[in-house]
Amino acid sequence: MKHSLFTSFCLLMLSILVGISQLSAQQNLWQKRSVVSPEIGADGSVTIRLYAPAAQSVVLNGDFAEGSKSGQMTMIRNDEGVWEYRSEPLASELYCYWFSVDGIDHVVDPSNSYVMRDVGSQMNYFIIPGGRGDLYAAQRVPHGTLSRVWCPVNDGRERRMTIYTPADYEESTSRYPVLYLLHGMGGDEEAWVATGRVAEIMDNLIAQGKAEPMIIVMTNGCTKHVAAPGYSHEGMWAPYMSGSMDGSFEAMFPSIVEWIDSNYRTIAERESRAIAGLSMGGFHSMQISKEYPDMFSYVGLFSAAIFRGKEGVATYDDLEAKLERQFNMGLSLYWIAIGSEDFLYDENVKYRNLLDAKGYKYEYCESGDGHVWRNWRIYLADFSQMLFR
Amino acid sequence: MKHSLFTSFCLLMLSILVGISQLSAQQNLWQKRSVVSPEIGADGSVTIRLYAPAAQSVVLNGDFAEGSKSGQMTMIRNDEGVWEYRSEPLASELYCYWFSVDGIDHVVDPSNSYVMRDVGSQMNYFIIPGGRGDLYAAQRVPHGTLSRVWCPVNDGRERRMTIYTPADYEESTSRYPVLYLLHGMGGDEEAWVATGRVAEIMDNLIAQGKAEPMIIVMTNGCTKHVAAPGYSHEGMWAPYMSGSMDGSFEAMFPSIVEWIDSNYRTIAERESRAIAGLSMGGFHSMQISKEYPDMFSYVGLFSAAIFRGKEGVATYDDLEAKLERQFNMGLSLYWIAIGSEDFLYDENVKYRNLLDAKGYKYEYCESGDGHVWRNWRIYLADFSQMLFR
Repeated sequence: MKHSLFTSFCLLMLSILVGISQLSAQQNLWQKRSVVSPEIGADGSVTIRLYAPAAQSVVLNGDFAEGSKSGQMTMIRNDEGVWEYRSEPLASELYCYWFSVDGIDHVVDPSNSYVMRDVGSQMNYFIIPGGRGDLYAAQRVPHGTLSRVWCPVNDGRERRMTIYTPADYEESTSRYPVLYLLHGMGGDEEAWVATGRVAEIMDNLIAQGKAEPMIIVMTNGCTKHVAAPGYSHEGMWAPYMSGSMDGSFEAMFPSIVEWIDSNYRTIAERESRAIAGLSMGGFHSMQISKEYPDMFSYVGLFSAAIFRGKEGVATYDDLEAKLERQFNMGLSLYWIAIGSEDFLYDENVKYRNLLDAKGYKYEYCESGDGHVWRNWRIYLADFSQMLFR
Repeated sequence: MKHSLFTSFCLLMLSILVGISQLSAQQNLWQKRSVVSPEIGADGSVTIRLYAPAAQSVVLNGDFAEGSKSGQMTMIRNDEGVWEYRSEPLASELYCYWFSVDGIDHVVDPSNSYVMRDVGSQMNYFIIPGGRGDLYAAQRVPHGTLSRVWCPVNDGRERRMTIYTPADYEESTSRYPVLYLLHGMGGDEEAWVATGRVAEIMDNLIAQGKAEPMIIVMTNGCTKHVAAPGYSHEGMWAPYMSGSMDGSFEAMFPSIVEWIDSNYRTIAERESRAIAGLSMGGFHSMQISKEYPDMFSYVGLFSAAIFRGKEGVATYDDLEAKLERQFNMGLSLYWIAIGSEDFLYDENVKYRNLLDAKGYKYEYCESGDGHVWRNWRIYLADFSQMLFR
């Protein structure tokens, strides 16, 4: 340890000399990696390190804090200026973290190039293998394709979407069922790919024969913007609690489905279409599936923000009559999932009471935890295995 | 300013209460955005801010430091703990930056969700519009598709690639020419997309009629790994000066070209194929184009690491005889570009002397600056306009 740290210091000094001093003339090509972080132990523990010799305070924030509601973990500084946290052995999962340093709330681990963005925040992640985490990691299985495409919608604009096509799509001439998978408030067409690990989950489930090969369409449901930050013509903007619960997204959905059916080898039938989403995307899935009841036979509401529609929008009127029309048509699956600690829990109880009172058939899955991606990855894995069988 | 800062503080306090204290139960959905950063002025200046009340030292690193070789800029702390740097008006460009805070070398701006990864380092970026920067920004033009695909290569593995297909590809039945575009040492199949802004450059040039619609294939030339961090089955690894100048990448290239010609509507002819790359990718382009002289009629060497092949590798033997065979076949374009401050400048002089001595025809472009992405984006824009005309 002492020796490798000394080596690290030499590398750091060298990289500072070579890298920093020549920034404008030579690209800063190589990471100045002064420590190894994260280090995953054979026992499933993780060690997180940050070289911060002059910092007064370094706090680790993550979703693997043992017994801590705050998600904060204390880091210990050694004599060389390296702050370190070592966890107990962790259950196999995908975990996220970031640092707070001297009052800066959000510092990404410079030693870990595994980074995902959720809404406006960058987070590091790591995967503890040996169980559920394996589902979120790329494995030696056939891989599907992820495409960023632009779809013309019926409000006259092109909008960016992410499309997952399964491993055999290019070679095959078959037609495939489609899952429309929607993000939450402030999210965009990158959310389910980056934080939701859609490609890894579906590649693995399909390879194991647990899910049918399907196309997955991930839209951008924040209608104010046409694409994720960096990919729209709107200049720089910061994702921040921007949503679309004003009827605009629902209004453009038929043109999206039409474009997908025209441009991909889909089975363009109700029985071969599913719609699901998390939080605001669960709201959208509920609204869209009842607005266009002949479109979807499978509906998934993941931690759905059920009763948050903007007042006075016609789309959101007559909920009960529209639900009656939808459920009377018959559904292959209407699936509601939420964590017991989710701040939308009561809203979901209210919605289930409404469905129960009418005798509408749905499946209910209650997990632990709250309004977190960990749940949404689990819900996607569970829901996708029930589709198109 | 005072008022908005006060509002920011309230938001920060609120977000700390709501966000941090409920991390494990509720997703940290919304960015805790205590300051606006970057702020781009109407005069083309940029203001970068970081809320770091307890930090002892905050340095801004970027490629827009006026008259500074080090790329470092001094930030001024105000009474509220916000560190600020305001630039002079900048030329229209895409600029990168990050912070060094209290001995942590590499801190990403938590207020700016525009982040790109180069090799193992995250950097923020912003675009000053009104000139060359417009070429790197998404505009209101038809957009091509970016796909992450997996290609079986002749070493028995599947390798991930990024493919750009131009805006009209899906609707058309035409066949297209292909540019193979290679990254540098430590890079991967994401490099040209993220830092190279391929999709934006090509969408814009094609829309302006300045470049022919073409397919662009961005391979992963670090043969040790099959995909970028997070997308391979090899577990966690840190990109760090890992390259492939041992003949392995050259050996697998024909199977890549064959797969592309089988799976995309290409014009599968020498006259409709180009290969170009930066640094190690320039080395690969030189080597591959001379190893398979009937494959490419257009060759681009961007800041190429010409003479860096591993000793004793047959691929790299008999350079002059192989170049003679290649140039004798005739080439539509052999293009060499390098910055006057590049550390590979002398190597390129030596190579040009070799070509000159033989009377081989090539075009030469010398820019300012050194071994930096700014040059490589310019080279791509210049080179792509000369292709397939």
